[in-house]
This record gives sequence, C-alpha cells and structure tokens, in this order.
Amino acid sequence: MISKAKVSFIKSLQVKKYRLAEQCFIVQGAKTVNETLASDYPVMLLCGTAEFLLSCRHTNRAKEVIETSAKELTAVGSVEANDAALAVVRMKAPGTPRLAADRFSLALDDIRDPGNLGTIIRTADWYGIREVIASPETTDLYNPKVINATMGSFLRVTVHYFPLANAMEACGLPVFGTFLDGTDVHATRFGKGGIIVIGNESHGISEAVARRVTHRITIPRYGKAESLNASVATAVVLDNLRRGL
Amino acid sequence: MISKAKVSFIKSLQVKKYRLAEQCFIVQGAKTVNETLASDYPVMLLCGTAEFLLSCRHTNRAKEVIETSAKELTAVGSVEANDAALAVVRMKAPGTPRLAADRFSLALDDIRDPGNLGTIIRTADWYGIREVIASPETTDLYNPKVINATMGSFLRVTVHYFPLANAMEACGLPVFGTFLDGTDVHATRFGKGGIIVIGNESHGISEAVARRVTHRITIPRYGKAESLNASVATAVVLDNLRRGL
Repeated sequence: MISKAKVSFIKSLQVKKYRLAEQCFIVQGAKTVNETLASDYPVMLLCGTAEFLLSCRHTNRAKEVIETSAKELTAVGSVEANDAALAVVRMKAPGTPRLAADRFSLALDDIRDPGNLGTIIRTADWYGIREVIASPETTDLYNPKVINATMGSFLRVTVHYFPLANAMEACGLPVFGTFLDGTDVHATRFGKGGIIVIGNESHGISEAVARRVTHRITIPRYGKAESLNASVATAVVLDNLRRGL
Repeated sequence: MISKAKVSFIKSLQVKKYRLAEQCFIVQGAKTVNETLASDYPVMLLCGTAEFLLSCRHTNRAKEVIETSAKELTAVGSVEANDAALAVVRMKAPGTPRLAADRFSLALDDIRDPGNLGTIIRTADWYGIREVIASPETTDLYNPKVINATMGSFLRVTVHYFPLANAMEACGLPVFGTFLDGTDVHATRFGKGGIIVIGNESHGISEAVARRVTHRITIPRYGKAESLNASVATAVVLDNLRRGL
C-alpha cells in the first residue's frame, strides 16, 4: 500500500512547479516502466502490482519498491488504463544540443499540446531523430500526458529547451520549415543533415525563427482542410526526408 | 443568457446516449461554428458573444440564437479556449458508404481515441479523401473531442459506421493495410482507387479485417519506436498514396 504522504507526492508531480522542485516525473504502464528500469534514468520509486513485480527483472534498479493494488495505481496516476506499474523517475541534467551537419534534428517552435509533443517525440524516434530542440515556451516534456504519448520514446530522444533562433544562428546548418508558399516536400532534397522546424499549432513558425529558415517547404494539399496537425506534419516531412528523392 | 434548462441540454450532448436520443451534437469555436452555419447541417441553436453575432453572416441559418458572455460559453462547453460561439447541430441521416474503383476511402478498424479519430478525419480532408467507413466499435464521431480535433473537416468528410469486413467483401476493391511484414510504402503502387485500413491503437488491424486486406504495406522505420500513432500512420500512407511512385 502507498502511504498518504507518497500519494500526495506522486500526485504533486502532475504539476510542473513540483516536478521542477523535486527534479522528478512519473512514468506509467507496465511496458514503459519496464523500459525505464532498463534505461540509465534513475528510478526513485517503483509502485507495481504483485503480478508486475513478480515478472519484472529490474526491480533492483529502483531505490524503493512498493507493492500496490491495481485500484490504488489508477487512483494515484493519471492514466485510467494503468493497472500494473508506476515509477517516479529522476530527470537528467540538460546538456547542450549537439546539432551536426551529418544528421537531422527537430526544432519545436512553441508546441503547446502535450499529446502533440509526445506524438512528435514518438515519431522522431521512429524516423531515427535523436535530438529535439524545443523553444522555452514549448510544453514541458515531463508532463505525464507528454510522457504517456511518447510511448517510451522519451528514453531515446533527447529534448533540449533552448531559444531556437540562437541555436540556429550558432550552428550554420540548413534549416527546413513548413510554410504555405514553400517548395513541394515531395520534390525537396534534404541533403545529409540540418534542422527541421515544426511550428506552433495555431500560429505556425514564429517570425524570429522564420528568418533563420533557409529552405521553405510545403506539404501539398489535395483536399480542403486548412492545415495539418503538428505531429502529422512532422511525420510527413520526416517520411519524405528519409525516403529521399 | 442561456437558461438553466438549455445549459443542461447542451451539457448532456457530451454524452453519446443523449446525443443519440436528441440526434444533436455540439460544435465549438468561432471558425468551425461559422463554417457549420455555411454548410447544409441544420443548426438548432447558436450561442454566441455579442461580438461574434455581430460579425456572423449566417445567424439566420440557426433556428434559435442566444447572446451569451464568453464566460458562459466556457462554462457550458468542453473547450476552455472557446470564448466566441457554440452551436447545437442536427446529425445527418447516415447514408450507405459509396466505395468506388476510382477513388480512395479510409476504413477505421476500431479507433478508440477521440483525438486520433478527429485528426484522422482532418488528415483525410487534407489528402482529398471524402469517405470514411468506421467499424461499429470506433469512437463516436459526434463526441465533442472528435469534432474539435477535426478542425471543421467533419463538414467535408463523411463517416459511416459499418461492419468493415462486410463492406470490403461486398465492394471487391483493393484493400491496403499496414502491417509489420508488408511491402515498403515507399515502393507501393496504389493505383487509382481502393480502401486504406487503419488499425486500432493497441491491437492494429483485426483478424477478420486482415483476411480481406489484398495489399499488405509497411511504413519503414529508421529508429527504435515500436509503432506510430494511428493518425500519424494515416498521414504517412496518404502522403505516399498521393505522391505516387
């Protein structure tokens, strides 16, 4: 059973202010908890059902282990369907973005929706992108909704919060951004490396960042929707990038 | 001001049972409400701020119009950011799916997440897909979260709830479905028409539907994520389809 104090501690980690103060966040669901235990993220607390703990091969990686009922887990977590495990995980110290000419990185210009951010990280992972720079206004990676939507990909993709325009200016790499008046993405030569900018859900790419975009690209439209969802646009650009010309 | 009775009526439409009983659903936000008023959907009730109603050119399309404050709108609706307009709209009678050899339709095999369903409809609209068949288990189109996520595309894309396997067997068209062991989607010739099946978020394409798939395709993976989000996968397949070989 989880003590009352621990319950309020875990629940407090749904709020950014407390996550920052504790430098901890929560990971939920058997699969992602298992993957996190197998990673180099420090696991401070593992709460799992008897069944989960029996089958888990990395319980020794957690500083503290508490056996819980499925009902308790659902009550303490933010995911209704989680009836197996929850972990309190320590954040890693943020490094400096390593942008290089021989690989692609994503730059997120103020992505606000947690589901979008998580799905973008999952999509980046699918397409072999290891590095994401996010504008300081981008929603917090450690929000439980973001972590859940990454489906474990937060373990493989590094997200740096950093002023985008500065990062772009400093690196001197090609910067690709989607606009309505760009080159057809189906005809774009992406080359070997650079930065792909994804704009805000409502306002697109901000002016300061747009000025640093060296290649304006457009996803061609065949119907009438006004725009694409941000994570969908990310996937289409990355698929075209990897496919090559 | 909206009467107490109307407030509970509007709020009741967040629940499928009441939507079915009333054959009505809600549309929120200035842009989509305006688009709905300009469409052939019957609008039973329009609630808008004085500012919205002044600028709206189709208020005569609503059977009833109520001026409201932004605060009231936020309280009665499900979208926090909506401070302009909300409409109660009558559902259209479901027709029969019109699958044809010269165009592509989407088939949704048990899509459960409202955000995914809405984003899939928006993506279908972008890529010029007009017809979607959804398995009876697929989440309800008229759920406010779905309608919001379509960003107005529910007005242009028709969704039919229909047993998928039956529909596929009856039409005799090519059926494309994503699996782990299919042909690379980058090398797939889609031809002129057919059905694209999108599987459930956790379980993929069901067995009964998989038996009717005539072309197994795969989105190539360049990194380590185990899968792609359903709406992201839809976009990648449709982009490849439209791009052609």
